[in-house]
Amino acid sequence: MASRWAPALAVVGATGAVGSVILELLSTRRDVYGDVRLVASPRSAGRTLAVRGADVAVEALTPEVFDGADVVMFAVPGAVAAEWAPVAAARGAAVVDGSGVFRMRRDVPLVVPEVNPEAVRERPRGVVAGPGGATMAVVVALAALHRAYGLREVVVASYEAASGEGRDGADVLHAQLEKVGGDRGLGSRAGDVRGVVGDTGPFRAPLAMNVVPWAGAAADGGWTTGELGVRLETRKVLGLPDLKVSATCVRVPVVTGHSAAIHAVFDEPVDRREAQDVLARSPGVVLCDDPEFPTPADAVGTDPVWAGRVRVSPDDPRALDLFVSGDNLRVGSALNTVQIGELIAADLGA
Amino acid sequence: MASRWAPALAVVGATGAVGSVILELLSTRRDVYGDVRLVASPRSAGRTLAVRGADVAVEALTPEVFDGADVVMFAVPGAVAAEWAPVAAARGAAVVDGSGVFRMRRDVPLVVPEVNPEAVRERPRGVVAGPGGATMAVVVALAALHRAYGLREVVVASYEAASGEGRDGADVLHAQLEKVGGDRGLGSRAGDVRGVVGDTGPFRAPLAMNVVPWAGAAADGGWTTGELGVRLETRKVLGLPDLKVSATCVRVPVVTGHSAAIHAVFDEPVDRREAQDVLARSPGVVLCDDPEFPTPADAVGTDPVWAGRVRVSPDDPRALDLFVSGDNLRVGSALNTVQIGELIAADLGA
Repeated sequence: MASRWAPALAVVGATGAVGSVILELLSTRRDVYGDVRLVASPRSAGRTLAVRGADVAVEALTPEVFDGADVVMFAVPGAVAAEWAPVAAARGAAVVDGSGVFRMRRDVPLVVPEVNPEAVRERPRGVVAGPGGATMAVVVALAALHRAYGLREVVVASYEAASGEGRDGADVLHAQLEKVGGDRGLGSRAGDVRGVVGDTGPFRAPLAMNVVPWAGAAADGGWTTGELGVRLETRKVLGLPDLKVSATCVRVPVVTGHSAAIHAVFDEPVDRREAQDVLARSPGVVLCDDPEFPTPADAVGTDPVWAGRVRVSPDDPRALDLFVSGDNLRVGSALNTVQIGELIAADLGA
Repeated sequence: MASRWAPALAVVGATGAVGSVILELLSTRRDVYGDVRLVASPRSAGRTLAVRGADVAVEALTPEVFDGADVVMFAVPGAVAAEWAPVAAARGAAVVDGSGVFRMRRDVPLVVPEVNPEAVRERPRGVVAGPGGATMAVVVALAALHRAYGLREVVVASYEAASGEGRDGADVLHAQLEKVGGDRGLGSRAGDVRGVVGDTGPFRAPLAMNVVPWAGAAADGGWTTGELGVRLETRKVLGLPDLKVSATCVRVPVVTGHSAAIHAVFDEPVDRREAQDVLARSPGVVLCDDPEFPTPADAVGTDPVWAGRVRVSPDDPRALDLFVSGDNLRVGSALNTVQIGELIAADLGA
């Protein structure tokens, strides 16, 4: 018999790029919550947003806003999550954080519901984290193949969308695309795109008509935090602490939809048709291959990771190449947050 | 004492995207030719184009146009090259072909002047070929690292520009960018870019605000001819017939400038600073690293391959990741053709 009790939810960052997708998902998926509170910066407080068919006033972020909340979702920049997630957890809420700050802490489970749902139950700090968008697109497809063939090594090159940097990233790309749109001479002389696009926002170089091989901050040895994140998060989610992972993270002029070219080496030889079947049967994955292929424009607005271009290396029967696309605001972010919330709600007895 | 004789040159495809860069290069580099004849389809015949400071009338493609030509450069689609290159060679000319049709023939040398210039001398069929744009960006950087560390295995993910499909490809992308440029709502719903961009031209899917993991034609095992081309051409140019190469070739909404994320495994451990020095000292390579990085917008209009993001794998001291960008109309095409022409001219005694 189902319990009549339903946990109270608070969504912090409700007005942001990811937050608005969270509200859309809360309004369209099975409703597991009682009270839903929307929280944002004082600047956005007082606005009303639609969730589950009703208008809800946005409240300012204060410690008191967490009183009575059983589950709190954070869809905010890392610095805000680092400050406020402990406040929510200290008041007894189970926190789901989509930012990067808690992902690699030993006492914080890193959860992809299709891969390691059981990990939500052990949350000594009161916080559960989801991996970054680039990792998500990769790990959902790899998890299924790992179960079938035993994963040994992964090489990833990402094609990451502007909205991976939030609304600001998407706005900067739109503004740049407006400037380059009508100019047929652009793109054939050094520096001409740079001279036209103006503000590069969070991207360190023009993104319209360009690709930018940089995501995150500088780390040791020339790596970026985005690239090391793909390595460490993939290891943690798959429970393979010694997995060899090399990633090159590249921003492309796509508004929404992260993609990745994946080269994976397994313990066992891989049959192409069988690998396609493994992907097609995996939860959270849609196979899109022969003669179709995934693109971010197709994946945007949808929940699953689209996988295709499945190929076995002619040089190594244990090596598989594939290409995946997923909506980074959903699969890599809002959807994962909402799914983790549902797992916690079930764990709380909802 | 320099010979007074200078070979006569014909450029077939002089009015195309690559052809016009060839004319620009002929006008700015050391002049090694006597008569220069410009050739195109009958549709373009009669136009005049500037080369070496003079206006030259474009002649229609006929067998007679090759009479007296010592060197003939082909910057045309494969089908045209396949038909006409043998005609030019039969009349005694040394043919330089930039299309893909002769690259993998046993009796045709595949030449990258920075890597294997000596190969131009042996041309039993009268034809010398250059590799494709995606291969070029990769092989120039890898050749230097191979000499230093001994190359064992390469994984490539490309970020290829629209002009890799010629003027038509660039025009289609410009037309698509004009349509999406002012629409701030685009890029967040499935299919909306597809509904707006119209003609996808040679790309099989929208390219504006999207990436398209497909280049060339379908080949066995789910591979594309573009991907197998990178594998076979890299092996042939480097003289490593057993090299393990996996490539995923992806078209991005960039007008000009191919890039690639390269994961390379060597026989010897690699020191990061030393690898950067090796690249910086290599002919045809510019090192752009720490804190800068190469982008296609910087490489466009320049001759070298820009290499950066050099990183040694934390999991394997013999594995190196890097990112390269090059102007596909130059380094991958017109420049290589012109440089091969210069090598042949020298070989002919000019």
